[in-house]
Amino acid sequence: MKIRIFITGGTFDKEYNELTGTLFFKDSHLSEMLKLGRCRLRLEIRTLMMIDSLEMTDADRMIIVENCKSAPEDRIVVTHGTDTMVETAGFLARHVTGKTIVLTGAMIPYKFGSSDGMFNLGSSLAFVQTLPSGIYISMNGKCFPWDSVKKDKRIGEFIETG
Amino acid sequence: MKIRIFITGGTFDKEYNELTGTLFFKDSHLSEMLKLGRCRLRLEIRTLMMIDSLEMTDADRMIIVENCKSAPEDRIVVTHGTDTMVETAGFLARHVTGKTIVLTGAMIPYKFGSSDGMFNLGSSLAFVQTLPSGIYISMNGKCFPWDSVKKDKRIGEFIETG
Amino acid sequence: MKIRIFITGGTFDKEYNELTGTLFFKDSHLSEMLKLGRCRLRLEIRTLMMIDSLEMTDADRMIIVENCKSAPEDRIVVTHGTDTMVETAGFLARHVTGKTIVLTGAMIPYKFGSSDGMFNLGSSLAFVQTLPSGIYISMNGKCFPWDSVKKDKRIGEFIETG
Amino acid sequence: MKIRIFITGGTFDKEYNELTGTLFFKDSHLSEMLKLGRCRLRLEIRTLMMIDSLEMTDADRMIIVENCKSAPEDRIVVTHGTDTMVETAGFLARHVTGKTIVLTGAMIPYKFGSSDGMFNLGSSLAFVQTLPSGIYISMNGKCFPWDSVKKDKRIGEFIETG
Repeated sequence: MKIRIFITGGTFDKEYNELTGTLFFKDSHLSEMLKLGRCRLRLEIRTLMMIDSLEMTDADRMIIVENCKSAPEDRIVVTHGTDTMVETAGFLARHVTGKTIVLTGAMIPYKFGSSDGMFNLGSSLAFVQTLPSGIYISMNGKCFPWDSVKKDKRIGEFIETG
Repeated sequence: MKIRIFITGGTFDKEYNELTGTLFFKDSHLSEMLKLGRCRLRLEIRTLMMIDSLEMTDADRMIIVENCKSAPEDRIVVTHGTDTMVETAGFLARHVTGKTIVLTGAMIPYKFGSSDGMFNLGSSLAFVQTLPSGIYISMNGKCFPWDSVKKDKRIGEFIETG
Repeated sequence: MKIRIFITGGTFDKEYNELTGTLFFKDSHLSEMLKLGRCRLRLEIRTLMMIDSLEMTDADRMIIVENCKSAPEDRIVVTHGTDTMVETAGFLARHVTGKTIVLTGAMIPYKFGSSDGMFNLGSSLAFVQTLPSGIYISMNGKCFPWDSVKKDKRIGEFIETG
Repeated sequence: MKIRIFITGGTFDKEYNELTGTLFFKDSHLSEMLKLGRCRLRLEIRTLMMIDSLEMTDADRMIIVENCKSAPEDRIVVTHGTDTMVETAGFLARHVTGKTIVLTGAMIPYKFGSSDGMFNLGSSLAFVQTLPSGIYISMNGKCFPWDSVKKDKRIGEFIETG
């Protein structure tokens, strides 16, 4: 079984620009993270965009949709900023069927010593191997179907909805 | 759903004694790792022993068996040294039925900046939620049934056996 | 010999707010850094302010001056943002005499895995013990008298001026 | 001013062998540490040996002596295991004159997330630039003349004697 990973940016991949003192995106750290995690799954990794999810438009989301559809793999992990992750999951649910797609992200950038990125990456790659087709969000060790989850911005966690 | 975690030691929890320059076990870092991973699963954590798996005897394994049997939870993660993880998995398979038990570990101690521990912890907690009852080993992003895996000691990875 | 450390903020102490995705100041990490460095010098540490040095006014600088003057110690380290460190050094030179004052900072926040903070802290505490009275900047392993240094903002380093 | 650094091993450069679960020496991390510290001093770095200081013989010490003597630089930092650092300092004092030589080390390996190595490296490079000729030990933020220091092995710190 081969798994596809699509990278879209988000906190996962934010870096600190020491000359300006601001946060920015450069390259994805996903390959480095998978190496540190000693992951030996068969993976195809592709960066679709490298943006803050607050800036993600429906045109961007359609790019993710098209790539999920045309990928030969049926099991796909999408790394994504947490702020609009639920919105993108709903968008994917309306356009893609017959595939297991797991969205995940991080609250702390990998480069800032985050371990929630490593933890979430491990979880999402496990969920994507075992769950039936559908669109899911994997955060905080849990896996939520796309239509029963929201981000609680006050505490920075994902919780089940009614 | 509540998940049980049993801690038995292994590389996961090794520390460096700066006075003697040797490796040793003190306390488990599992709670700290779960906090860093921002894990919000309902967990019951219990330390059964804190040993190098090369020193684990069948009496030790019977302690793990008894605890897995008597735990009210049906989904159990066991942290374990990698050297005899497969042996313990087989021992559990002969004595415990009707529960999903996932053994996991690390190649690099958490305290030495390991990220494979965080990654494996994320994976094993996801697998334990989704797999049917049985005994499994979760390493390198994969999940192996207990009777079709071995550790390749030359490369430090777990591989599928015929 | 007792050494005084005055904390004024700067990149050294920036943190990442995971709820908003922005950088901010909370508490100083200096005590934690000194503990990690296994520093056993006799130190008196006091936080004077916790600001970005771009926002430092002459009124703020006068607070630093007054504290340097009234401190019983003759050897003082000031942690400071790098952007206006040279300006503050000149301000101190015009108002304080008879003391050895070393300004230092970091290009990467301590919380983001920075090691230049630890390195600069080690350097500045060594320089303050050995140099004659005067105002100095300790960065990049070097120690510059206040009137012969500038920050090269293009490369983020301090260099000697004619 | 150019500074010479001689590497002899010690805890500084210990690594963890994940296949055997033991500690060993491979390459020095000094260049990486200097880069992280954003050090811009003019340095000449040379590895003389890569050993635990408990195994250092007088023949090894004579190699350090000869290299200190023949080096064109008058200011030299020697990285060294802490267990026999004081002994080597005394050996150097009997054989080398007219140079400023600072021995330093670490209690925790750099690869295990140690920050005392970064701190000590910063201190020792500052002390070597400012102290008169002589043999010194730089640990715990302090600088001790070679003949008035010992390692307190119970607490892992260097303290003044006499």
